[in-house]
Amino acid sequence: MNAISVPELMQRLGQQARTASAAMAQASAARKNAALRGLAELLRANVAALQAANAPDVERARAAGLSEPMVDRLKLTPKILETCAQGCEQLAAMPDIIGEIVGLQQQPSGIRVGQMRVPIGVFGMIYESRPNVTIEAASLAIKSGNACILRGGSEALDSNRALAALVQQALQQAGLPREAVQLVPTTDREAVGRLIAMPEYVDVIIPRGGKGLIERISREARVPVIKHLDGNCHTYVDDPCDLDMAVHVTDNAKTQKYSPCNATESLLVARGVAAAFLPRIGAVFAAKGVEMRCCPEAKAILSTVPGAVVKDATEQDWFEEYLAPIISIKVVAGLDEAIDWINRYGSHHTDAILTTDHRHAQRFLREVDSSSVMVNASTRFADGFEYGLGAEIGISTDKFHARGPVGVAGLTSLKYVVLGEGEVRS
Amino acid sequence: MNAISVPELMQRLGQQARTASAAMAQASAARKNAALRGLAELLRANVAALQAANAPDVERARAAGLSEPMVDRLKLTPKILETCAQGCEQLAAMPDIIGEIVGLQQQPSGIRVGQMRVPIGVFGMIYESRPNVTIEAASLAIKSGNACILRGGSEALDSNRALAALVQQALQQAGLPREAVQLVPTTDREAVGRLIAMPEYVDVIIPRGGKGLIERISREARVPVIKHLDGNCHTYVDDPCDLDMAVHVTDNAKTQKYSPCNATESLLVARGVAAAFLPRIGAVFAAKGVEMRCCPEAKAILSTVPGAVVKDATEQDWFEEYLAPIISIKVVAGLDEAIDWINRYGSHHTDAILTTDHRHAQRFLREVDSSSVMVNASTRFADGFEYGLGAEIGISTDKFHARGPVGVAGLTSLKYVVLGEGEVRS
Repeated sequence: MNAISVPELMQRLGQQARTASAAMAQASAARKNAALRGLAELLRANVAALQAANAPDVERARAAGLSEPMVDRLKLTPKILETCAQGCEQLAAMPDIIGEIVGLQQQPSGIRVGQMRVPIGVFGMIYESRPNVTIEAASLAIKSGNACILRGGSEALDSNRALAALVQQALQQAGLPREAVQLVPTTDREAVGRLIAMPEYVDVIIPRGGKGLIERISREARVPVIKHLDGNCHTYVDDPCDLDMAVHVTDNAKTQKYSPCNATESLLVARGVAAAFLPRIGAVFAAKGVEMRCCPEAKAILSTVPGAVVKDATEQDWFEEYLAPIISIKVVAGLDEAIDWINRYGSHHTDAILTTDHRHAQRFLREVDSSSVMVNASTRFADGFEYGLGAEIGISTDKFHARGPVGVAGLTSLKYVVLGEGEVRS
Repeated sequence: MNAISVPELMQRLGQQARTASAAMAQASAARKNAALRGLAELLRANVAALQAANAPDVERARAAGLSEPMVDRLKLTPKILETCAQGCEQLAAMPDIIGEIVGLQQQPSGIRVGQMRVPIGVFGMIYESRPNVTIEAASLAIKSGNACILRGGSEALDSNRALAALVQQALQQAGLPREAVQLVPTTDREAVGRLIAMPEYVDVIIPRGGKGLIERISREARVPVIKHLDGNCHTYVDDPCDLDMAVHVTDNAKTQKYSPCNATESLLVARGVAAAFLPRIGAVFAAKGVEMRCCPEAKAILSTVPGAVVKDATEQDWFEEYLAPIISIKVVAGLDEAIDWINRYGSHHTDAILTTDHRHAQRFLREVDSSSVMVNASTRFADGFEYGLGAEIGISTDKFHARGPVGVAGLTSLKYVVLGEGEVRS
């Protein structure tokens, strides 16, 4: 690391990743799954060593005055490491989709045409704090037959080094190239600038972190970016609906956890059920200390709820991702206004309708332009594990390539395969 | 057009496209197909008027000294217009894939999760000369439920205006918004700069034209680009193979037409069959006047063929897309060298193996990193019509989003749908 410049370092990592990606693309399912199971074993066998590597990161963070929740996110506890190990095992147990051929059909010329799923090649991942993301990204790279270059937060460098060393050991033990998963071993910011501008070595960049980081990377990247901006998720309580279910689901969507991007930030209520529904959900929010920022109509109803903290919503509130015990609440005329409202103020992440009307449900699913649209379920379900993807590398709010939670399939592409018996074009 | 500036014009087109795209996304299959069939009728009913509109474009091109092939590409002949009309009818007859839900499966929580196919939104298309591309792009936009903004070549402006007017008439007659297909009504180059930098209105840009145009647009665009760079396609004659078939298919792949991007530009021959195969294909190429640029080993064999034009290949030849009666020829040790060679020198467009060995075929399909990989078929088949896509808007040499010929599906995205019965996250 001493004599080599950052551009030289990144060039080397890029070349090594590109070479490793060819071997990974050809690797058998058995070998990739062996690497994942081996990694799970290594994580369990090295809990003490990983915690020792993690300790200086945690100490430095405390010394630097990071808030306790931020320090918590840095910690490699036995529980977090066990979750990582189980995640690897779950991925190993899933079917291998690399090489599958879909849609093979014979054409009038006689050729049979289908599409084969293949790895994208090399992805670069840029993320902050949580070192367990290193394992999530590495395990998805292995399962999907890609190589990856990981750039974690500087505050977790020691932890990430220790984790990446185990990943490389697991790869090697399974007969796969160690360079399939490489950690950028420097905190120099120039490394990020290089990583996102090497189209010859890196096929896609996945940033995970604050909106500022993601916007900057999207602006400067010279390769495609799978980006996840904000999650201003809506729950719309329709007329007609099952009010008991609506209270139960809305409560969960908002209060089960405040910080995730799939928590509901805005509640829309059809006028026909507002007088019956709002006092009930208002009482729940009041009991849990959730501040309600309301349109005048919702405010008039909710102000009568004992203990409710009710304020006037500003125009900005309708756009806001609070990630906190605050929710915006709006009474709408019905389905049409709800759909228009969500498409206008939402962030195209996850939006749900709670309804008993089949046609309303179908229209909501089709017309709301979001990466996840739901009927009668909590927005909190928008997550790779809950969707059965096994793991997720992030949630895309783009429409291009991958949309919504991105798992193994989102790290692949489909190429055409043509099977002939000597056909020629006439 | 008089008082309005180019930025204002493009802003207006963008807003109108975005508004129209919402209506198109909800449009029924019946309505979209009615617009396509109506357009076919209008094209047939207006052959004379379209030729009259086309005449000044053709005259100006001749006066400007354009080569006769370039002038030919501009012409709206009755035959070309009939092909356009038939293309619209073929698209109308195809199943509507918008709204289809794939992979719906129940998860352990009880929710059912699948993906719904929806339009991308708005695409911008930038193309040169051929005015029939206006109809191809418009018809694909209609079928896929997208809106589009079309920027054709300045040399075809009168023709494109006349065609776009018919498209808008067909849309209106079917009860769809005219602004779903808009032509940029100016030849000002600033319009292109604006079109590729309006992420709020345009979701993806599709350039069709020379490599220079595509590289410039990829560099400057602020939205994703579906790009098609060069087609340096290979045909690899394996050992073992059926030599009669190999001669037949290689001939077709190279000589059936020289200008398409899917024509074979480089021939690789396994050493074991070189002495038997090369003289036979060499005689075909000699008879058709195809120049052969060869490695020393191929040259030694081919130099004995009467009438053959045989030269030494330079390193640059292995990268070249000739689009002309020239082919590069290389003898390789076998499958491994062929795969490595194609991945190194090819352009990841379309590559074929001619073989009788099952395992070789499987390895070639999997390991060659191209948008189309073929076994025992002519590379000339790499085309949306031949693949059964109904039409193509271009051929993508990218791995991201769409790869290979891009038809209706390439202009869509998959969003997650979640169907519940009141489930919450625990």
